[in-house]
Amino acid sequence: MAVVEISVAPLGTATPGVSSYVAACVEVVAESGLNYQLTPMGTVIEGELDEILPVLRKMHEVPFTRGAQRVSTLIKIDDRRDSGSHGLQGKIDSVMNRIQTRS
Amino acid sequence: MAVVEISVAPLGTATPGVSSYVAACVEVVAESGLNYQLTPMGTVIEGELDEILPVLRKMHEVPFTRGAQRVSTLIKIDDRRDSGSHGLQGKIDSVMNRIQTRS
Amino acid sequence: MAVVEISVAPLGTATPGVSSYVAACVEVVAESGLNYQLTPMGTVIEGELDEILPVLRKMHEVPFTRGAQRVSTLIKIDDRRDSGSHGLQGKIDSVMNRIQTRS
Amino acid sequence: MAVVEISVAPLGTATPGVSSYVAACVEVVAESGLNYQLTPMGTVIEGELDEILPVLRKMHEVPFTRGAQRVSTLIKIDDRRDSGSHGLQGKIDSVMNRIQTRS
Repeated sequence: MAVVEISVAPLGTATPGVSSYVAACVEVVAESGLNYQLTPMGTVIEGELDEILPVLRKMHEVPFTRGAQRVSTLIKIDDRRDSGSHGLQGKIDSVMNRIQTRS
Repeated sequence: MAVVEISVAPLGTATPGVSSYVAACVEVVAESGLNYQLTPMGTVIEGELDEILPVLRKMHEVPFTRGAQRVSTLIKIDDRRDSGSHGLQGKIDSVMNRIQTRS
Repeated sequence: MAVVEISVAPLGTATPGVSSYVAACVEVVAESGLNYQLTPMGTVIEGELDEILPVLRKMHEVPFTRGAQRVSTLIKIDDRRDSGSHGLQGKIDSVMNRIQTRS
Repeated sequence: MAVVEISVAPLGTATPGVSSYVAACVEVVAESGLNYQLTPMGTVIEGELDEILPVLRKMHEVPFTRGAQRVSTLIKIDDRRDSGSHGLQGKIDSVMNRIQTRS
């Protein structure tokens, strides 16, 4: 299973606010049916990589359909294929368990 | 105010799990007193950039103090100085408001 | 045209050196026939985005075929669809021209 | 020694081209005296991390001094403290050597 973070930003949009673009991108993920989490810096999606990649491709296209001429997209893939804990919740849990064990 | 995401990963650690390193990094942020949020892909911190940077520097050092010989750190800074909504919660809220308005 | 940077890193390898993995990834780009440039921090590729994406997918897979169990891949897409200068050389040239003009 | 890549992008500029901002950032690195390389996707700097960090801080500030109200900066640190080859040229060489050995 892979956990993937994506952030999509239009350049040259005249004003610094980009939340309308981000909202339209999040709707693309929501419609995909994949588990995801909106964070202050991007959208994190879990699933099989080959299910996630077409969704990323669509998200990257969103600002162009809304008039942007240049889009900067950052994608970070964490793909783990051993038996270790993974996924949106699994990754958080394994860090939190370590912190509580030490306290 | 700036919102900064950081992820710190040791290379060459023999096993794929790195949650003990991440937990030690998160403790550094917690001790800083800055507002932060742990996500599945990193830690997001809000505050004045010059308050955040020394915390990032300490987080990057953590895996070395635990035996790592190589550390890969990714930092993404979103620094906004106009009157637009910002911060950990402000960024999420402004996206969610857009989504609800359209639905 | 898009310019895309990718870096692929295995986690949990026995030693901190990862150049054999990187070399195998670069060979995948070389075989694709796309223009690319190896930098100290990644591989930068130019072309149509839909030509580049399948190459990125193959590159991400390389460390798994060499025994890695976890792979962290970072992809940054700069996709520009106006008439501005772009491409591997165009981007460098437009910065260098600005610097020389000011000197 | 550390090798660090940085890219600095203003959001909400009137036009998609950002090369004047990038050129001003590159001048900051050039004045620092550190070894660096301009790539199509960023600037890569080598040196001791504590020498590099103040330069990154100055680069991030550049677009604000030129009127930008929001700046998105991406920093990737590769910090290696064993005896492996490193540095701008060392990293490239060790990949190229692997490729030539296999051919």
